[in-house]
Order: sequence, then structure tokens, then C-alpha cells
Amino acid sequence: MGRENSEGGILLAGGTVVTLDADHRVIENGAVRVQNDRIVAVGKRGDMEKSFKGTVLEASGCIIMPGLVNAHTHLPMSLFRGLADDLPLMEWLTGHMFPAEAAHIRPETVYTATLLSCAEMLLSGTTFCCDGYFHEDSTARAVAESGMRAILAQGVIDYPAPGVPDPSKNVEAALMFVRSAKGRFPAIEPSIFCHSPYTCSAETLIRAKTAAREENVLLQIHVAETDGERDQCFAQNGVSPVGYLDRLGVLDERTLLVHAVAVDDADLSMIKKSGAAVVHVPESNMKLGSGVAPVPDMLAHGIPVALGTDGCASNNDLDMFGEAATTALLHKAFRKDPTVMNAETALRMATEKGAEALGSGSVTGSLEPGKKADIIVVDTRRPHLVPMYSPLSHLVYSARGSDVRDVMVDGRLVVRQRKLLTLDLERIMERMERLGSVVKGKA
Amino acid sequence: MGRENSEGGILLAGGTVVTLDADHRVIENGAVRVQNDRIVAVGKRGDMEKSFKGTVLEASGCIIMPGLVNAHTHLPMSLFRGLADDLPLMEWLTGHMFPAEAAHIRPETVYTATLLSCAEMLLSGTTFCCDGYFHEDSTARAVAESGMRAILAQGVIDYPAPGVPDPSKNVEAALMFVRSAKGRFPAIEPSIFCHSPYTCSAETLIRAKTAAREENVLLQIHVAETDGERDQCFAQNGVSPVGYLDRLGVLDERTLLVHAVAVDDADLSMIKKSGAAVVHVPESNMKLGSGVAPVPDMLAHGIPVALGTDGCASNNDLDMFGEAATTALLHKAFRKDPTVMNAETALRMATEKGAEALGSGSVTGSLEPGKKADIIVVDTRRPHLVPMYSPLSHLVYSARGSDVRDVMVDGRLVVRQRKLLTLDLERIMERMERLGSVVKGKA
Repeated sequence: MGRENSEGGILLAGGTVVTLDADHRVIENGAVRVQNDRIVAVGKRGDMEKSFKGTVLEASGCIIMPGLVNAHTHLPMSLFRGLADDLPLMEWLTGHMFPAEAAHIRPETVYTATLLSCAEMLLSGTTFCCDGYFHEDSTARAVAESGMRAILAQGVIDYPAPGVPDPSKNVEAALMFVRSAKGRFPAIEPSIFCHSPYTCSAETLIRAKTAAREENVLLQIHVAETDGERDQCFAQNGVSPVGYLDRLGVLDERTLLVHAVAVDDADLSMIKKSGAAVVHVPESNMKLGSGVAPVPDMLAHGIPVALGTDGCASNNDLDMFGEAATTALLHKAFRKDPTVMNAETALRMATEKGAEALGSGSVTGSLEPGKKADIIVVDTRRPHLVPMYSPLSHLVYSARGSDVRDVMVDGRLVVRQRKLLTLDLERIMERMERLGSVVKGKA
Repeated sequence: MGRENSEGGILLAGGTVVTLDADHRVIENGAVRVQNDRIVAVGKRGDMEKSFKGTVLEASGCIIMPGLVNAHTHLPMSLFRGLADDLPLMEWLTGHMFPAEAAHIRPETVYTATLLSCAEMLLSGTTFCCDGYFHEDSTARAVAESGMRAILAQGVIDYPAPGVPDPSKNVEAALMFVRSAKGRFPAIEPSIFCHSPYTCSAETLIRAKTAAREENVLLQIHVAETDGERDQCFAQNGVSPVGYLDRLGVLDERTLLVHAVAVDDADLSMIKKSGAAVVHVPESNMKLGSGVAPVPDMLAHGIPVALGTDGCASNNDLDMFGEAATTALLHKAFRKDPTVMNAETALRMATEKGAEALGSGSVTGSLEPGKKADIIVVDTRRPHLVPMYSPLSHLVYSARGSDVRDVMVDGRLVVRQRKLLTLDLERIMERMERLGSVVKGKA
């Protein structure tokens, strides 16, 4: 049942359909009809089955919902998962991650580790991710093979980087990737990723944003991840990290600000005014001791906020169900207020709000006719999901990636009954174990 | 392969053995030998296989580790999972949980919902739990059927409760349960559970502790869960909740303090001096907006700290892998210090420290000869667990309950290849769905 939907289409039928559309529709005994790469109808099963001649994918006892959106990750870092933990950000980054990257990041390792990350994401219900790293052409090949939807960016940093030994060529390398990737894979959109305001000069940031504007692609950047970064920026530039980017003219509706932990109300007003979006990365911020981003305030400002896992060396998984749960729990604890972030808010950040923040709100993120068929089926016949009073509550507080049964991206079934159809997972794991032995030997 | 280990025993062989013993032994290509209900040897596979004549349980590519200890839960509350969320503690408790309990908690519902909770726990690697609720004799029957190890307590509260309409009989009801359950099931130990200092009078607390002392059983109590509870206790009694229990003579090495969120350094000194232990319940505290318990300070005081999920109406799952991950992440975020709680500390709270806090440190919680054979096998041939640099890191930051392949309790295999051998899970889920329909109709 890969692409036969081109004939009469596919009807995912019989479960509880959680649309996450503007009307908050939850349809019991519902169905979603897919034709080619698009959703063409969403409604009650009875109505939808009439005159339907295609293939029925039975989903009784399941939830049918939009695929999850992981709005910030570094796909090849699955090679370094668990290599160094429980360390301060700068020690982790400069003492462990940068040296590991210098020693082990090559096109082949990027390709294989990206395959593994895509396998993990698809098997846990993520259908759309936003990545930034190096050797991004290898990432693109792997993502395309996996069948996942993605925004992929070549990284820009003012240090020698994997594949870009001369930092003065960093923006050019990013631009070259954008141009080569445009239109090459149907579900992949290129982007540019500046590492941060403290690792890219003002000139680099301006050149990167100018290039992104000329190519009409998203500019991603880590910003205000820690109090230390904020304090250093004030000391060096007299303004906050967000204020600094604003002063350089880098903020607009095609700018994606990652982390935004050490931000104040003035920063949030600036972000809102510029039209930029934020990616909240709670587990990575927790693990690195960076603190808690003021997400309830961002939402009150009307800023689009997506969720991301970060690279799985600082998380250490790519399970967006877990990330949504952490989001819903963390802000309640931090503000001592259980009403500050409800289940639906967290779930929307992981789906339709995530897509909106990435500039893909009209493409994916909810189950609505005309959108791309990025759909997952969650098996709720599990001991931790029975009985079910509220599908939204269960999806956030009780379900995990391992409950995902089937996954469709762009109208194509890529996971069926928990089996990945697009990649040879056993072979990828074997190759990763061999690469891991090399890293271990040198680490 | 249920009890054939009585012949030549069982050898769990070939994986990475994470002992969590005092020497922090992690044995590659190791093995654990079980005879009847006990671990008799732990070592290298090669050495252990010599002269072994029993059954080998192959665990290559897996981690063999102690079963997890869930030190605080209310098993029958799986009936109410997701019924009410995102509400303040008192509104959730008095507006939703107490009425739902009054309407739906009967011996039959307690029995069935406990079966479901045990299924969820065993399938996610928990082999030992500590519970407090009502109709505890029904809980005990269900737990015994599941094959899980448990400390089970009849609840004491100065209000009419399920099965105890007359509060003046609450301590007697608890005592009756203790006496009837003692020695009845080999892996179940009875206990008494006082709901809290604000729902039990001083007299009730003293009577309950006196009864617990006479019977030499654990007294469990929720304490200092919120700032509001602490402030009210100061206003009414002139001391903190912990100070109040100390004044009543309730604290000793057989007292288990649950939550301990709103505690200060003086409280911690008092707890340490008394010999009492604490159960940290992070996800429930987060979900109810109660705040963050000062666990690093508790550990610095040398207080034994266990982990618990709480009832799954306030979590909303019973996955102790998730709870350990949350523990490791939460304290880093809250203190903005990634070194404040490392993976091993969190994992030990979920295993050997948990058993110690429950007074069962000599019985279970680590893989050591002489201890009960409470052992789980975690399948690490998964996309989120390959490659593996540190088993401890993977177990806390990347693994989840769904990665557990086999579970042994008291020397008996209760889960094999993710199939629960002791209970008819399908039938339990059907019965829970029917019970859920009733709750939904009346809720």
C-alpha cells in the first residue's frame, strides 16, 4: 500500500480523528480521504465510505491525527547521542561536540546518521522536521530516501566547520546548498542556518540573511539560549541577543529563532513586531541547564511557537510526543500554575503551530482538505491509553512515539504496523554501530 | 519458561549487565544466574556458562538490569486517567477526583483498574510498586495475580471514603487490611497510608503511626505537596508540615514522605535526623503546578529519595523510565545547572535507592547475589538506542518503557518478548473500556 492511492485513493477509516483544525474538530468513528499527495476530505466514516472505491486503511481503536512537526534538530547528531552528558553547555559544546564533529563528521557519517534519525522520527510519528547542520547535501539525500518532509539548512559559523574549512566561504557554501536543493526533492525545502549571534559576526549574519531573502528561504538561528549568552551580548553590543539581531535587520517573518530562553518582554515585543517565529526546545534546555523559555508569555504576545527536540546529543531522543508532554508539564511546574499550558496548546505547538512557525501552515500540520497528506495513526489499544476520556489529554500526557502504528507523508505510507517501509533499519543500525565503535575508539 | 528455573535455574546471558550495585559494575557480555526466586551469581557470560545446566535466556544486544521501583502510586486511578487535567490541585482533587471516587470506586473497579495498572507497569519494566488507596484487599488480589512485587496500604482519611463510610473506623480498616494481608502473598507487604496532615487529624495520624509501629509496617503520607499546604500548616499549627509530623512523633525510619515539595533546609534536617525517606514524584508535581521538590538538597542531606509516578490521573502514565528522565532533566532546568543530577543518580532513585527508601534495600533494587530476582531486559537494538556509548545515559535519557523486552519478578518470567504472561490484557482492556463508559456517562 505504498502509492496505490493514485488509483482510487486511500481512506483512513474508523478511528477518532483529531483534526487540529481551526474548529477543533474531533470526529468519533471518522475518516480521512487521501488522493495522491493530498487530503481531499475529512468527516464521519459512514458519509465518507459511500461511493469510495479505493483502499481502506482500517483504524478502528486508533487516533488519526496530523503528523508531528519537529521544528529544530541536527539530524546527524544521532552519531553522538549519549557521548557526553550532564555537562555545562559550553563545556559540552567546545570540549566534546565540536571536537567530535571535527573528527567524525563527513558526508558518509552525515548520510548514515541522518537515515537513523529519520527512522527514529518516522517511527515515533514525526512527518516534518527542520534541520541545520553541515554536509547538508548528504542530509538531503538521506531525508529524501526516508520519505520525510523537511526544511534543511546548511550551517553557517565563523569557525572552520565540517566541509567548510575556510569560514570566509560559509555563507557561499550555504547558498550553494540552497540553490542545488531547490526543487530537487518534492518534500524538501532548503534554508540557511546561522549557528548563533556569538559564533557569527555581524557581517556574516547580515550576509546570510541577505542571501536568505534573495532566495526566499527561512533563516534559522540559535539565540538567547542561556543567561551567559545574553549577558555577554549586553556587554559586547549594549543590547540583548534579540535586540542585536533586530539592529542588524535579521528579524522578519522568514526568521526562525531557536531557544529564546533568556528573553524579556521587550525582546518578545520585538519578535512579535518583526513577524519572526520561535522554536521552543524544552528538553535540550533542561538537559543543558539553560533554563525555561517564557513560552506562555510568547503565546500571549501572539508569537508563533513551534516545538523541537534539538539534536539528539542534547535531548537524547527525537520523540515529539515526549517533547509535547514535557512542554505541557514544564511550564506548569515553573509557574506553579497548572492552567498555564493545557494539553491542546502543547499538541498544537507540535503540529499546526509548528508548521505555521516554519512558514508551512498552508501545507501541513492539520487534517484539512487541500493540505498535504501527512497523517499518523496512533494505536490506543494499549494499557496506558484505555479507557479514553479525552484524546487530546491521552496524546500529550500518556501516548509516546512507540504507540504510533502507521505513518503517511505526502500521501505515501512510510510506516505500516510499526514497520518502516522506506529504509532498511537493521542495516542502518549495523552501520551506526560500526561508526559508533570508531567514535568510541577516538573519543 | 515460567518456573522451570526451579530445576537448573535460568541464566540471563549475553547483554550488558547494569548491576547498580555498590561497585557500579557494568559488565559487557555479562550474565545473571537465577535459582528459584533469587539471584545467585552475576558476572561474565563465559565464566557463568561453564557448568550451567539450566535454561538460557538469550539477551545479546540488550541491557540486563534491576526492575524499576515505583515508590508512590494509587493503582486503581487508571480508571480516571485523562478525566480531568490542567486544573489546580484542590479543584482537581475536590471537584473531580473525590466525586469520581465516591461514584465509581468499588471492590470490582479497584480490582480491574489495578490489573490494568500492573499490566502497564510490568510492560514498562516496573517490578516493585508502593501503593495506597481504598478497598486495598481488592488491590492485593489483582497485584498478586499480576505477579508484581508490592507494598500495599489501605488509605486513612478523616472523610467518608470508598469502603470506609465512617471515618472514625479508618485506622481500624487499615489495620484490618494489614493483618489480613500479612504473609498471604509472598511478594506483597502491607502498609498504612495516611492521606495528608490536612485531611487527617493529629489523633488519626498518631493512631495510624502507633498501629504501623505495632505491626512493624511502613507508614506512607503525602506531605508538603504545595506552598498552600505549607502556609496553611504554619497558620494552623505554627510549624511546617514536616515539623508538624515530627511534633506528633510520626517520623521515623519506617515513615515514607511523599512529595516534600514545599520543604526548607530545617525540614530536611528533621527528615534526615528521623531516618524517614522521601518519594519524589516529579511529573505529578509538574502537572498539578505544585512546584519542584529540592531533591539535590535532600541527596546532599543523605536522605534516601525514591521516585514515583503518583496515580496515573495526575501524571498520566506509570512509565518509570519517563519519570527517571524527567527527574534528571527537571532539576537541571530549575537550578540552571546541568551537573546537579546526573543519569546514574536518577536511575538509582528509580531502582536501588527506591528499594532502600521503601525499607526493601536488602531484598531488591540491584543485581547482586542473594537479592530477589527482579530483573528486566531492555532491547537496545532500537533506532533511538544505537550506537551506545553509555548504558546509563541511554537508560535515562533515551529508553522508554516500550523498550523493555522481558520482565522477571521473584524469579518468575512475567513478560516475555513484550507479551504479558500473567494476565489476559485484551480482556482487562475490554473491561476497562466498559467501566470508562460508565464513568463518562456519569462524569
